Amino acid sequence: MPDAAQLQKVLDRIDADFDNSLTRLFALLRIKSISADPAFAGECKAAADHLAKDIASLGFASEVRPTDGHPAVVAKSNGKSGPGRPHALFYGHYDVQPVDPLNLWHRPPFEPVVTDHADGRKIIVGRGAEDDKGQLMTFVEACRAWKSVTGSLPLDLTIVIEGEEEVGSKNFVPFLEKNKADLAADYVLVCDTGMWDQNTPAITTSLRGLVYEEVKIKAANRDLHSGIFGGGAQNPIRVLTRILGGLFDDDGRITIPGFYDGVKDLPADILEQWRKLDLTPEKFLKPIGLSIPAGEKGRLLIEQISSRPTCDVNGIVGGYIGEGSKTVIPAEASAKVSFRLVEGQDPNKIRNAFRDYVSARLPGDCRAEFTDHSNAPAVALDWNMKPLAAARRALAEEWGKDAVLMGSGASIPIVADFKRTLGLDSLLVGFALDDDNIHSPNEKYDLRSFHKGIRSWARILAALAQ
Amino acid sequence: MPDAAQLQKVLDRIDADFDNSLTRLFALLRIKSISADPAFAGECKAAADHLAKDIASLGFASEVRPTDGHPAVVAKSNGKSGPGRPHALFYGHYDVQPVDPLNLWHRPPFEPVVTDHADGRKIIVGRGAEDDKGQLMTFVEACRAWKSVTGSLPLDLTIVIEGEEEVGSKNFVPFLEKNKADLAADYVLVCDTGMWDQNTPAITTSLRGLVYEEVKIKAANRDLHSGIFGGGAQNPIRVLTRILGGLFDDDGRITIPGFYDGVKDLPADILEQWRKLDLTPEKFLKPIGLSIPAGEKGRLLIEQISSRPTCDVNGIVGGYIGEGSKTVIPAEASAKVSFRLVEGQDPNKIRNAFRDYVSARLPGDCRAEFTDHSNAPAVALDWNMKPLAAARRALAEEWGKDAVLMGSGASIPIVADFKRTLGLDSLLVGFALDDDNIHSPNEKYDLRSFHKGIRSWARILAALAQ
Repeated sequence: MPDAAQLQKVLDRIDADFDNSLTRLFALLRIKSISADPAFAGECKAAADHLAKDIASLGFASEVRPTDGHPAVVAKSNGKSGPGRPHALFYGHYDVQPVDPLNLWHRPPFEPVVTDHADGRKIIVGRGAEDDKGQLMTFVEACRAWKSVTGSLPLDLTIVIEGEEEVGSKNFVPFLEKNKADLAADYVLVCDTGMWDQNTPAITTSLRGLVYEEVKIKAANRDLHSGIFGGGAQNPIRVLTRILGGLFDDDGRITIPGFYDGVKDLPADILEQWRKLDLTPEKFLKPIGLSIPAGEKGRLLIEQISSRPTCDVNGIVGGYIGEGSKTVIPAEASAKVSFRLVEGQDPNKIRNAFRDYVSARLPGDCRAEFTDHSNAPAVALDWNMKPLAAARRALAEEWGKDAVLMGSGASIPIVADFKRTLGLDSLLVGFALDDDNIHSPNEKYDLRSFHKGIRSWARILAALAQ
Repeated sequence: MPDAAQLQKVLDRIDADFDNSLTRLFALLRIKSISADPAFAGECKAAADHLAKDIASLGFASEVRPTDGHPAVVAKSNGKSGPGRPHALFYGHYDVQPVDPLNLWHRPPFEPVVTDHADGRKIIVGRGAEDDKGQLMTFVEACRAWKSVTGSLPLDLTIVIEGEEEVGSKNFVPFLEKNKADLAADYVLVCDTGMWDQNTPAITTSLRGLVYEEVKIKAANRDLHSGIFGGGAQNPIRVLTRILGGLFDDDGRITIPGFYDGVKDLPADILEQWRKLDLTPEKFLKPIGLSIPAGEKGRLLIEQISSRPTCDVNGIVGGYIGEGSKTVIPAEASAKVSFRLVEGQDPNKIRNAFRDYVSARLPGDCRAEFTDHSNAPAVALDWNMKPLAAARRALAEEWGKDAVLMGSGASIPIVADFKRTLGLDSLLVGFALDDDNIHSPNEKYDLRSFHKGIRSWARILAALAQ
């Protein structure tokens, strides 16, 4: 069990080695591991190879393991496992989101730099700087410091890093099932979530689920000229916009029958706590150029973004989208529609309710085709799990204030899969900020998030061993 | 004034020379004169040069004249102008529509061929095969035959061919105004319209107008992650679909206030004539895979497509439209929306009513930007104009049945411009068929349309001189 002096040496080591930590992160950020685009499969493999090699250099038994999709990295600390010594499974992902629209990036997305934010913060800019390369490297660098200072880790560790988180982990979940025995541990550590604000750490204790559907409406057997057929032939964009345009009522509630079945209001005491957090439109929306909460009327903004289910059209396309004009009635039009789910909602029911909703509104001559891109339930973690108390202590020491236990609006479907396949609860600690532009152009990670993230994990590793 | 024997020699000459006519058409079709895309400006110029040279070879004083956009061709027959001898201005356009989606073409769009339609008809396939290269060449070839057989034309002729019809003729209209004296004539001949069916010629006596607007809805100052901001931030696709989805009521009527102001019902006798034409969904919609007229309830299909104003969303785009999924809330979304107008509707009023309609439905935090792509009123031609009677006689002789005088659902804005700038009425005769796929992949022109189209114009030229 590490003592305070050892921990201090580790923290000092982290500070002294920070430039090298940054150099190692940049090497990973330069690899274009976009999982959604098959053209980058080789780069995904390269990212896995790179990480396996880097983690092996810490003395882990580390290897790249094939899945039916992009490979996973599995590394074991070769520790002195024994009764009472905890064994944690750390999870991260090396794949990143596509970079379009490329023209909105101020710099090439895979040429990371440290630069100055408008408000003076130092930031690391590049695709994956935060999600999830920057975040997972906070953990790897903490392990490196422990090994370098003490020659060992405070606890036993298995690190697993997947390459398909951004495309739904379809091949990684079967991989977990197959490797259940090999991945046995006491709990999971995940670094893919955010802080409460720049100065306040957070532990995420609930996650929204995600149903992501693509719907394509088809009408005529070919594109038509609107001068000849306009007024006579059905237009699939008209049908699609009419259906999607009816998804919300005037109060911002989703109109799909049964959508809110099973959704509970927050307990009064939690709602009161959240009210005190005072998440105002000024704080949350102003930085993105908005001022009016767009969700259900009569709900706090913090409810809208974390405890209430939502619907967003994430993409829509049909007809002529080039420069100028073309008087076409297209043969088809399609949209990508996602739902963030909360506890009590069944993703399969929601998916079917959406499909029924669309199908019931199709006029004659139109067909709808659906594609299921994601289907994950919400997760509520056990607020009383033991590692959570350890993490709270460690984070309070590093940041000088208590961590907020918060609900996240985002989905990390793998957390439910860890529970289902391995029977493990997850501890979600991360250092992201709301203005990190993840999944968007100019993704960034605060230099301070990276530095203090490493220090935080070093402290958490020690606390978990106590 | 030509006699019947001369005309017969001309028609025989057309039949004998038809393979060469086809070769000349193919040479024009190979030029990629897409006016909408600046990358093809050189090809537009090449098409103008090609036509000017070809028409010069008929003894015309022919030249390429610059405009502020793609150039126009002006050619004069150098005839024996005199009192009583009619002078016609023929109009066509050498520019063609973009070819996307390219993957739906069965052959490269600029490598024309004659091939067999599924039902056995011989067809010419390629971009511009009909609109308008094939159509304008029916006229040029008819002139060639007259010159070749008789050494002259039955009437005086100015040919003007523009290169921006498919992008709204923005620079050609000022060109007409500037060259008003030079383009003086008795009336205009236009070959850019269709037949009633494969065996029945038609003269188009009314054209719908066109207002074509692009609207872009903007919300946040950047793309957002729906996990973090979903439920709190406004989504411009949600706003756009809600607005567009409300454009039609349950009876298929357009809901924009004032949209139908000034629109008159057909006179009872015309409606009765149209009813007898028996344009059924089986005849008109089945070939494109549809069965249910999509326009206003309680109207004949033929009304829906020719005498009633319509609205179509011709294109829509926003958010992530690549493969797979991305949980983005985009910063903006846009649509191209067009309105076909009928007599009595003021395009400026319609455009403003649409903009007001959108603006009135914008929630807070959203802005709308508009772009005007087209703004042309409907045209009703004089059914009693003298050349119309001549054309009816000529078409009846060639096709063995009377031409239908029909309303077209399409817009040829230039017809209104000829009236306004030059004070001239237009005679609209063309040989297009509804299944020509104009503006779509695999555009075609029936070989019979091309051949009998040339013969028809040869006869019309003679009839106009009588």
